[in-house]
Amino acid sequence: MKKTTLRIALVQHAMGPDLHENRKASIEGIQRAAEAGAQLVVLPELHASEYFCKYQDTALFDLAEPLDGPSRQQLSQAARTHGVVVVGSIFERRAPGLAHNTALVMEADGELAGIYRKMHIPDDPGYNEKFYFTPGDQGFKPIDTALGKLGVLVCWDQWYPEAARLMALAGAELLIYPTAIGFDPDDGEDEQHRQLDAWRTIQRGHAIANGLPVLACNRVGHEPDRSGAGRDAEFWGHSLVVGPQGEIIDEAGLEAEVLVTDIDLARGEHVRRIWPFLRDRRIDAYQDLLKRYRDGI
Amino acid sequence: MKKTTLRIALVQHAMGPDLHENRKASIEGIQRAAEAGAQLVVLPELHASEYFCKYQDTALFDLAEPLDGPSRQQLSQAARTHGVVVVGSIFERRAPGLAHNTALVMEADGELAGIYRKMHIPDDPGYNEKFYFTPGDQGFKPIDTALGKLGVLVCWDQWYPEAARLMALAGAELLIYPTAIGFDPDDGEDEQHRQLDAWRTIQRGHAIANGLPVLACNRVGHEPDRSGAGRDAEFWGHSLVVGPQGEIIDEAGLEAEVLVTDIDLARGEHVRRIWPFLRDRRIDAYQDLLKRYRDGI
Repeated sequence: MKKTTLRIALVQHAMGPDLHENRKASIEGIQRAAEAGAQLVVLPELHASEYFCKYQDTALFDLAEPLDGPSRQQLSQAARTHGVVVVGSIFERRAPGLAHNTALVMEADGELAGIYRKMHIPDDPGYNEKFYFTPGDQGFKPIDTALGKLGVLVCWDQWYPEAARLMALAGAELLIYPTAIGFDPDDGEDEQHRQLDAWRTIQRGHAIANGLPVLACNRVGHEPDRSGAGRDAEFWGHSLVVGPQGEIIDEAGLEAEVLVTDIDLARGEHVRRIWPFLRDRRIDAYQDLLKRYRDGI
Repeated sequence: MKKTTLRIALVQHAMGPDLHENRKASIEGIQRAAEAGAQLVVLPELHASEYFCKYQDTALFDLAEPLDGPSRQQLSQAARTHGVVVVGSIFERRAPGLAHNTALVMEADGELAGIYRKMHIPDDPGYNEKFYFTPGDQGFKPIDTALGKLGVLVCWDQWYPEAARLMALAGAELLIYPTAIGFDPDDGEDEQHRQLDAWRTIQRGHAIANGLPVLACNRVGHEPDRSGAGRDAEFWGHSLVVGPQGEIIDEAGLEAEVLVTDIDLARGEHVRRIWPFLRDRRIDAYQDLLKRYRDGI
């Protein structure tokens, strides 16, 4: 069977209040990844800013930028300069009062290969995303690049087997999750460990269910709640690279890191031949997946 | 929050050519489980016989029994005698040339609470199930018992997030998988390890995605291919009990064992409050889950 090695990099870094410094950290990470031979570089979710959804403030919509804003221009230039495909993530201003959490994929020549607007939007203490982000309206479609079809999803999507499956059914060759997730400092160590492991495990599950590699790039660092009223956040890093049987190929820790790893894109087909899950799906019996709840069953 | 402790048992055992001995092992396991205080006892898939799907032989349909056959009678008696709910599994003869792989749930008074006919049927070297088992025609419906709604699925179903989700959406309070899965003796140790861990991981993923405990009961032991032409099987045991964040609560090894463990049924609601995945499902964008493949996306 054909061996197709792809060198990928996850640029796990911390963000502070200075957008310029954050973008610089992202761009420097892309450069380091390219110097290490990476062909595909993934950044964390919303890498230009602190994670601003800790509380609700209409003034923070000033952080949003249009699709052709400064983040895209810098990512485009970095992709072109280094000849790498880049997955970035922006707070997208689409219209006044209409914003999205949007991943951008830049081709190695700097052109925009496509975008993905986060479909599943969380909302819980410290993660007020439903206030800021309109749920995506473009569905689950992989983005075509010279490196293959990238199943780009964002953060909260990573808890949904449906999203991963829809990407796989549309021919995605990789699942990719820019992420911002952290510990609740009020939780005990046991709960923190369970949450981190659950995050890792469910993504490994998507790899297994779909016979696809999975990449997740998270941020790190302590970010204060600048409203003073809410919770600080401790982003847990642990960006990871998973093979198509759910095996962990590489994994970062709690600190900033450019994780560079080779993955074998041909391995997925081998795994799908021994575990042909797509063959046996009971599409005649899945209608109720389109329901909110199966009341009365 | 209400604490509702349920003591469960998984009867992991080996099977040989003597049906009488196999049934005896199952029944003795139920007895030991009940003596240890278990309220719910789960047996492995097709626990009355060796795993006969290693090769195709029309004579082996003689192993099939009707829904009210000897397995049910024995399970009913054991359930009633010990006052426990029992999940068993039979090769069901429904009509000449029409057989199913069917789980039976017996109430603690010995009545049949319900059945589940395996929906996803595998077929690969050593697991010729499509020859023997007609795919289930009753869909994914939890079975009501005095202990709660049991989301009983069978073996190959455990690789399908759709099956777990449909059970959760119908109010299942536990996911339960009678199983027969093993190593391919031709595989190297690395591959065997990856497979076992993938099996464990995807089931932990279902627990996480749905905020539900998961029980899986597998068989153990070396079973020869009695046709002489195929592969022997090495069933890997490792029956496991998983909590609603995917945490492993208890786990068996490679040997026969009655695994008795307490699970807290109220914990799932707590987890669903902090991780309300059901709230945010994009049911408006899941239509293509009903397709075999999303050609042309």
